[in-house]
Amino acid sequence: MSDLSLKPLIAAARGLTPSRQPVWFMRQAGRYLPEYRAVRSKVEFVELCRSPELAAEVTLQPLRRYDLDAAIIFSDILVPCTAMGQTLTFDKGEGPVLSHPVRSAADLSRLKRADAVRDLGYVGDAIAKTKAGLRSDQTMIGFAGAPFTVASYMIEGGGSKTFTEVKRLLFKEPAVFAGLLDLIAEVTCDYLAMQVKSGADALMLFDTWAGQLTGADYRSFVLPVTKRVIAYARTLGVPVTYFPGQGIDRMFELAGLEVDVISVDWRTRLASASKILREVGLEVTLQGNLDPQLLVAPEQVVRQRVRDILLEARQLGLKGHIFNVGHGLLPHTPPESLTWVIDELRAFR
Amino acid sequence: MSDLSLKPLIAAARGLTPSRQPVWFMRQAGRYLPEYRAVRSKVEFVELCRSPELAAEVTLQPLRRYDLDAAIIFSDILVPCTAMGQTLTFDKGEGPVLSHPVRSAADLSRLKRADAVRDLGYVGDAIAKTKAGLRSDQTMIGFAGAPFTVASYMIEGGGSKTFTEVKRLLFKEPAVFAGLLDLIAEVTCDYLAMQVKSGADALMLFDTWAGQLTGADYRSFVLPVTKRVIAYARTLGVPVTYFPGQGIDRMFELAGLEVDVISVDWRTRLASASKILREVGLEVTLQGNLDPQLLVAPEQVVRQRVRDILLEARQLGLKGHIFNVGHGLLPHTPPESLTWVIDELRAFR
Repeated sequence: MSDLSLKPLIAAARGLTPSRQPVWFMRQAGRYLPEYRAVRSKVEFVELCRSPELAAEVTLQPLRRYDLDAAIIFSDILVPCTAMGQTLTFDKGEGPVLSHPVRSAADLSRLKRADAVRDLGYVGDAIAKTKAGLRSDQTMIGFAGAPFTVASYMIEGGGSKTFTEVKRLLFKEPAVFAGLLDLIAEVTCDYLAMQVKSGADALMLFDTWAGQLTGADYRSFVLPVTKRVIAYARTLGVPVTYFPGQGIDRMFELAGLEVDVISVDWRTRLASASKILREVGLEVTLQGNLDPQLLVAPEQVVRQRVRDILLEARQLGLKGHIFNVGHGLLPHTPPESLTWVIDELRAFR
Repeated sequence: MSDLSLKPLIAAARGLTPSRQPVWFMRQAGRYLPEYRAVRSKVEFVELCRSPELAAEVTLQPLRRYDLDAAIIFSDILVPCTAMGQTLTFDKGEGPVLSHPVRSAADLSRLKRADAVRDLGYVGDAIAKTKAGLRSDQTMIGFAGAPFTVASYMIEGGGSKTFTEVKRLLFKEPAVFAGLLDLIAEVTCDYLAMQVKSGADALMLFDTWAGQLTGADYRSFVLPVTKRVIAYARTLGVPVTYFPGQGIDRMFELAGLEVDVISVDWRTRLASASKILREVGLEVTLQGNLDPQLLVAPEQVVRQRVRDILLEARQLGLKGHIFNVGHGLLPHTPPESLTWVIDELRAFR
């Protein structure tokens, strides 16, 4: 099947033949770009997320430099937490901090059931503004954090290496833990619907920390609510991508997941991911998976790895392949390296 | 085959039937024990590693409390770096810091080819003293970091989230990177030999960060030198355990590795690890893999998970199974939880 009139990313996500190989980069709008740093020097990160004009501007910046097939709205997976009653700040070099960590039934009861349009409408406005700046063959991607990953920040009050408070709540107060995930799931569904209504052509769900649980705990406590959000997102009529985080362990658990695309971390070979997903019955498009750290390498090394990945994807006979990095771009990424990636990819036959 | 006269851990590692289920815990000597904190309140961490008396004392502490099958010598994988010319300190809460990070050929040339006996003999002395305090059925485990994991600290000058300098060296100066791994491998072989000579009955190689590379880079740059160290360690006549870090991705690459035991992180199901290892032709004993964070759970939950793992290991028909956590114990581990684990394990039929 093929439909050359579809946007390339949408065609690939749907398992149709795209008019060209789609490519975009997680965190393609960000600190590695001087034009982004120029905007950020004037506003705080959270303020930038809240300004439709500025968010649209930085979202479009990488598309002016590079021949990309998608824009992903500039925001943060913790933005919805602010609409539930937590305050989001960023410590210098320390990552996100959320006030009022959720560690008890009382903490949970104080959270608000956010209204996506009223409380998070600025993200929709940013999507609409961005979309007006896209070519018709470029895909506007909306996104959210998956319930467990968002919950892990809400419980810890920020990032964590050991997820101590998350596990404490999960094992000691499983009902509170489940209630929190349910609340996040409801808010996330509304939030994604609002993004599609505002113009998102595709959605992505980031479950960066899904891999921190045992397979059994993920399957019991996390997968059902995650499936619900993904199933709902697909009823919105757009393809949905799930990023299960580092490692392929989670892929063993995904039997029965109805999703369009799985985004593969660079620490997993596409071949391994594809093998396991097929074993559990998932025939999906894969996204990935260049090592974002590779982009410091000399030009020839970068170009070779791009060819390696494209060749691997072709040999695997994937349902579809969206080229991307296996995790977000880093602040020290040399901007010219992305030019080599795209150039090599466009030349690949 | 069975040999009830062998120490249980050695029998399990060799694929023989042990007289009882062997169990120990990574980082079983450590901050969660008040008697450890009492010792540490008087000496710095590095000083503790360098004192055979104190290192033996804290190594033996958990064996006085718990019915364990092994002691692992109290030390740190970065101790050999001090013998190569770096200074090791521990920032409060920030983890290890190594002076003189290795980022060029000149940095590499300044490192010393440590003499294990002369420069690291205190670890051997600590092993000998510890062993004198063990029952004959208890195994004395010696250990080292695997070359890549040690190199990653030596290059970064400490821990890292993104391994930026490691990748920079690997991709920009592959010969320096390889030279560093070769030097570490040589020192590590001597270091392990010295530990066996001092009384270690088994050896473990920690490759905590092996999973941070792509499968292709791991296979090209890391696996050959790692295989060399493991092969050498096995010529010392003791069983060798390899811990490839988080995730099972690395297990796809281990074809041809001759090792006795693979230690499995808790984020991987024993079933998945066993399946992949068999697919690549490795029939080995598995060690693991209780989630160390689970130990904050109520007693019944802890006991149930212990039974789950023992049952899973039995159903898999593993060559052997050494019960352990899937990663080191954490400072907030409640000491009584280990009593429940061991009690449940001893009662399991």
